[in-house]
Amino acid sequence: MSEFVSVREVGVRDGLQMVKTILPAGRKVEWCRREAAAGISHIEVTSFVPPKIAPQFADAEEVAAGVLRIEGLHASALVPNLRGAQRAMEIGLKKIDYVLSASNEHNMRNVRRSTEESIEDFSRIVSYRDELGRADVVVGSGVATAFGCTIAGKVEPSTVLQIVERLLKMGADEITIADTVGYANPGQVRDLMRDVLRLTGETPVACHFHDTRGMGMANVYAALEVGVRAFDSSLAGLGGCPFAPNATGNINTEDCVFLLESQGLRTGVDINALIELRRDVETWLPGEPFAGAIARAGLPKGFVPVA
Amino acid sequence: MSEFVSVREVGVRDGLQMVKTILPAGRKVEWCRREAAAGISHIEVTSFVPPKIAPQFADAEEVAAGVLRIEGLHASALVPNLRGAQRAMEIGLKKIDYVLSASNEHNMRNVRRSTEESIEDFSRIVSYRDELGRADVVVGSGVATAFGCTIAGKVEPSTVLQIVERLLKMGADEITIADTVGYANPGQVRDLMRDVLRLTGETPVACHFHDTRGMGMANVYAALEVGVRAFDSSLAGLGGCPFAPNATGNINTEDCVFLLESQGLRTGVDINALIELRRDVETWLPGEPFAGAIARAGLPKGFVPVA
Repeated sequence: MSEFVSVREVGVRDGLQMVKTILPAGRKVEWCRREAAAGISHIEVTSFVPPKIAPQFADAEEVAAGVLRIEGLHASALVPNLRGAQRAMEIGLKKIDYVLSASNEHNMRNVRRSTEESIEDFSRIVSYRDELGRADVVVGSGVATAFGCTIAGKVEPSTVLQIVERLLKMGADEITIADTVGYANPGQVRDLMRDVLRLTGETPVACHFHDTRGMGMANVYAALEVGVRAFDSSLAGLGGCPFAPNATGNINTEDCVFLLESQGLRTGVDINALIELRRDVETWLPGEPFAGAIARAGLPKGFVPVA
Repeated sequence: MSEFVSVREVGVRDGLQMVKTILPAGRKVEWCRREAAAGISHIEVTSFVPPKIAPQFADAEEVAAGVLRIEGLHASALVPNLRGAQRAMEIGLKKIDYVLSASNEHNMRNVRRSTEESIEDFSRIVSYRDELGRADVVVGSGVATAFGCTIAGKVEPSTVLQIVERLLKMGADEITIADTVGYANPGQVRDLMRDVLRLTGETPVACHFHDTRGMGMANVYAALEVGVRAFDSSLAGLGGCPFAPNATGNINTEDCVFLLESQGLRTGVDINALIELRRDVETWLPGEPFAGAIARAGLPKGFVPVA
């Protein structure tokens, strides 16, 4: 069997963060069910943020409960603080994607506290999980704006590496390095991810890229080359960040799967099934920008998924 | 000074091949003049094909004559046969971009003869140049469909390498490896270009990518990593191939320059001047699809061109 690379869908969370339509919980669950049927095994299904900040996720509990019934799917949720983590665990999710920003300015705007305070809160989440005896819950953390920030500009790699080191010491089960605002370029990805992987050892690492400046697929390739084997992506390239102007969108799931499979890496994902789902999602979210090349151009003649 | 990478504009040729509007010669010359002013030093300015096949290029002589007055610009033209090469040399162009397809099926559709016949014609062009005593004319050849073909499917790397070897023996001054139909992926680019560069030695080599399946920038990065230092690209990502369904478009010049500069490589190109030109070209070609991320999202905060 060929080497496996995990493509983690974030469209139902990151993708829906900026759209005009509040998608009903049932549609969100259907989206997840069909992605799972297409072979996507990890989905970030919702965000446990206060409903008044993000009305799109006021149904977080309902979506999580629906998704937990999908067999074989590893569902996670974004949480910005301890309260979010508590909600996620209460409903029965087995994976928590905590997020903080390497850029203090971005963290202040995003979650209204300093990066330092967010790091300390991560430690409280791990302790809470341990005190509950919920060893079945994976607690990972994303490091946002790891490649630069629209507010602060440059973010030093040493800042990112120090944060990763502290999160690991606090017991992070997984680290996700995120280019929240679409500033990353492939040489930068290669250099930073090589250093991150040196720190993380056996702890799983993922990359979360946005295609804002057209570098998404090049960044995936650069990360692959130094050994990253998990990527966040969004169906139809939906996505954005409220504090990153023009940051739509996430890298496109269909194109990302195509890139990985064309490198001889196994994703287990049926691209044509994703494209079929995408056509329906387009009707659910009228007026949104849908990106991606494979859905438009089709697979190359003779393309065979990696077994 | 940082290492230089050549970005060669093909929008005035490849980009205009498929558009609905016949752009007046004066506009084409203005396009070239403003690209040259923005720092683009090589432009493929027209195509010497029979006007009844491509009415867009019926003004090839007029455009070439106008462009030859632009100081410091290296202007070339696409030629599909000896007759085209003769026309290009007669008007005074110093560079000829011959093209043949590695896929025999594609070559038959594109120029109505076999790849073998096209290879032999290349030899006649070199002899013609030499007999004229025009040592000042650079005769390069492109190898189209080098990464796959929409008609034939897979194209063997050995086929491409054998063609490159024969072109070099015939006296090619430059080789361009082209993904005419947008089938290439970065691992494939890395492997093929590594082998091509072994054959070419001191002879300059360029890559010509299309972004049809979203892999354009990843392919540029992969080619860079093995040592390619020249790339064809098209302003606003215009372009296509009449025998490659949905093959729009070429990789985007603005995004390509951004990728290269972000790797610390010097292009000499002012991205903002390109974006300004692009805004005008959009008004010249109503209804065409314009692609590219940098023109939409802008450069990252603190971006500084490589000196």
